Amino acid sequence: MTKAYQGYLIDLDGTMYQGNEPIPYASDFIQTLHHKQIPYVFVTNNSSKTQEDVAAKLRKLDIPAEPSQIVTTSLATASYIKANHGLSRCYVIGEEGLHKALREEGHTITETEDCDVVVIGIDRNITYEKLAKASIAVRNGATFISTNGDKSIPNERGLLPGNGSLTAVISICTGVDPVFIGKPEAVIMEEALEVLGLSKEKALMVGDNYATDIQAGIQAGIDTLMVFTGVTPFSDYKQLAVAPTHYVHNLKEWMEKL
Amino acid sequence: MTKAYQGYLIDLDGTMYQGNEPIPYASDFIQTLHHKQIPYVFVTNNSSKTQEDVAAKLRKLDIPAEPSQIVTTSLATASYIKANHGLSRCYVIGEEGLHKALREEGHTITETEDCDVVVIGIDRNITYEKLAKASIAVRNGATFISTNGDKSIPNERGLLPGNGSLTAVISICTGVDPVFIGKPEAVIMEEALEVLGLSKEKALMVGDNYATDIQAGIQAGIDTLMVFTGVTPFSDYKQLAVAPTHYVHNLKEWMEKL
Repeated sequence: MTKAYQGYLIDLDGTMYQGNEPIPYASDFIQTLHHKQIPYVFVTNNSSKTQEDVAAKLRKLDIPAEPSQIVTTSLATASYIKANHGLSRCYVIGEEGLHKALREEGHTITETEDCDVVVIGIDRNITYEKLAKASIAVRNGATFISTNGDKSIPNERGLLPGNGSLTAVISICTGVDPVFIGKPEAVIMEEALEVLGLSKEKALMVGDNYATDIQAGIQAGIDTLMVFTGVTPFSDYKQLAVAPTHYVHNLKEWMEKL
Repeated sequence: MTKAYQGYLIDLDGTMYQGNEPIPYASDFIQTLHHKQIPYVFVTNNSSKTQEDVAAKLRKLDIPAEPSQIVTTSLATASYIKANHGLSRCYVIGEEGLHKALREEGHTITETEDCDVVVIGIDRNITYEKLAKASIAVRNGATFISTNGDKSIPNERGLLPGNGSLTAVISICTGVDPVFIGKPEAVIMEEALEVLGLSKEKALMVGDNYATDIQAGIQAGIDTLMVFTGVTPFSDYKQLAVAPTHYVHNLKEWMEKL
């Protein structure tokens, strides 16, 4: 008999969709949660998109999702900075999702290196000048925060540089390592639990990527459900240092236990 | 009695000048070599400038220098690629000095990731698209070469990201480490010896930075003269793992031995 979880934290890429293609049973699974009124939020390391962007993409795939159910690393970053450093003057390298999240949390975005906090997320308009300002600010003592450490991001052209790779320019130049917010860090999970309004014992983290999704659950003390529809293949399962709490080959298997 | 060296390899920043300011006795020292007809070349990790640019800057400071006496990491990179991989199709991230050196060596510069070699040098016009193309090419098997691993470059604003920091984006994204050409690697020193036309036993490497200049001499089996006018202070001397062959507080002391 499987424990009845009172809320779900759910990964997107490789769990709900692959690029623009839906993952089989993802829609059915979320519709089941929705109909049974089991609370759920989506947890993503994507810092470039807003909550509205992500919810709209999910709804196109027949996955019920409201903007308030999307926990991006940008939101978790904005919230973490407020909780740990108060409302701050932030120098930001990043795209719209990150700028919007910081502004809406009440932070000020500066155009110069004169700031309290340097925040970096994926930025397809990165420039040397942005990296220079961020490096000067960090060396001058600004707090250094990175939305996530993903080394690469998949794209139809191949694996392109992820925010973890861009972040390295500043950490190598300055010798200062950032605080990372996204999966596998516990920070984003704690933010997601707060949105769900549940304590960690009552929630389940669902994801396909052992190194990020499942590790995030483990780091945060949340039970985990691994689904072999994305990055980590079933053939890796036996070699995992710490196993997930549960695993399924696809979400249909789990639906039957709800 | 000091060994009479038949040729000199000489660093620039911190040895000949600091930014735009001359280092005391640098001009007198080079004029002495010039009058005594002792061959010398300058060896620099700066990949952005051409030989003509560097020679012109030195002459403004009353330091006798011809373009042919300037060994930049760009020239060493172009020469290394030819010797080890033949004339190649190169995807290049870098500035004018690197593009010119590769073209003049006979290599082809591609605009796409369809290439044999990815070459990266400092590029103040870096874009995400350039980093993406380079990462795709390296993952597809292109040889990965970086002009130098300097983590930062000094500037009146502070320490800005150096080429070693930019290179990290590609190496972290792909998991492939590049071949570095500049100091402290021996590659650039071998290039400089070839320009001088001397075997390593007959030359002396002069520089202020233990981690780059002096290590480059040590790696290449060339005697070294450390001068305390730049990065490494005299107070560090006693803790050095491998001491330089000689040291002086300024180049006047060495001139007296010529």
